[in-house]
Amino acid sequence: MDRIPILQMGDLLLVTIQVDMHDQLALTLQDDLTEKIQRTSARGVLIDISALDIVDSFIGRMISTISALARIMDGTTVVEGMQPAVAITLGELGLGLRGVRTALNVERGMKLLQLPAGDP
Amino acid sequence: MDRIPILQMGDLLLVTIQVDMHDQLALTLQDDLTEKIQRTSARGVLIDISALDIVDSFIGRMISTISALARIMDGTTVVEGMQPAVAITLGELGLGLRGVRTALNVERGMKLLQLPAGDP
Repeated sequence: MDRIPILQMGDLLLVTIQVDMHDQLALTLQDDLTEKIQRTSARGVLIDISALDIVDSFIGRMISTISALARIMDGTTVVEGMQPAVAITLGELGLGLRGVRTALNVERGMKLLQLPAGDP
Repeated sequence: MDRIPILQMGDLLLVTIQVDMHDQLALTLQDDLTEKIQRTSARGVLIDISALDIVDSFIGRMISTISALARIMDGTTVVEGMQPAVAITLGELGLGLRGVRTALNVERGMKLLQLPAGDP
């Protein structure tokens, strides 16, 4: 596992995070994502974290960085699929994912990005 | 990593396979998928394998099984994102993923499943 796949769906890029992130993987994802935003003229980035049981400060910072990068490139980032336990932990830790929009699931995330689902 | 997330997008379920599959993970995925097809009335299952550098006979059989399960439950399965090297190897090994439809990328896979645009 040396890179996380980025799926293009119309104006939207979908990233599903399933594995434990480490420095190199996070950097590769940032590189791939900025490159892909530029190449595909994507307007939105949807990050699915439904597979994550734990979101620590490293993942939180990575999500914030991705969101900032996308914003610079005229894109919006939405994080979706957060498990209730993860939300509770983030709340308790005071990690609010500032500057990042969230949605309950992928469909609501797409609506938030005002992108019609299944419209390549 | 004890289960692979299944994302619902309208009538479609999207499964992104990023990690090495093992017996238990494959069984869990089959259970989750059949349960989710029933719960969501999904008509199509899209399996993204763009992150896989290797598709061996185990993965091939798992994909065929998922496709058969989905068919029994009135769903169509499309595998997409296959890397060229994977296609070459499958061809050389004579593993044709019989009974499974394939598409080049997620957008073409959605088109193949004839999902109405803008229908989350």
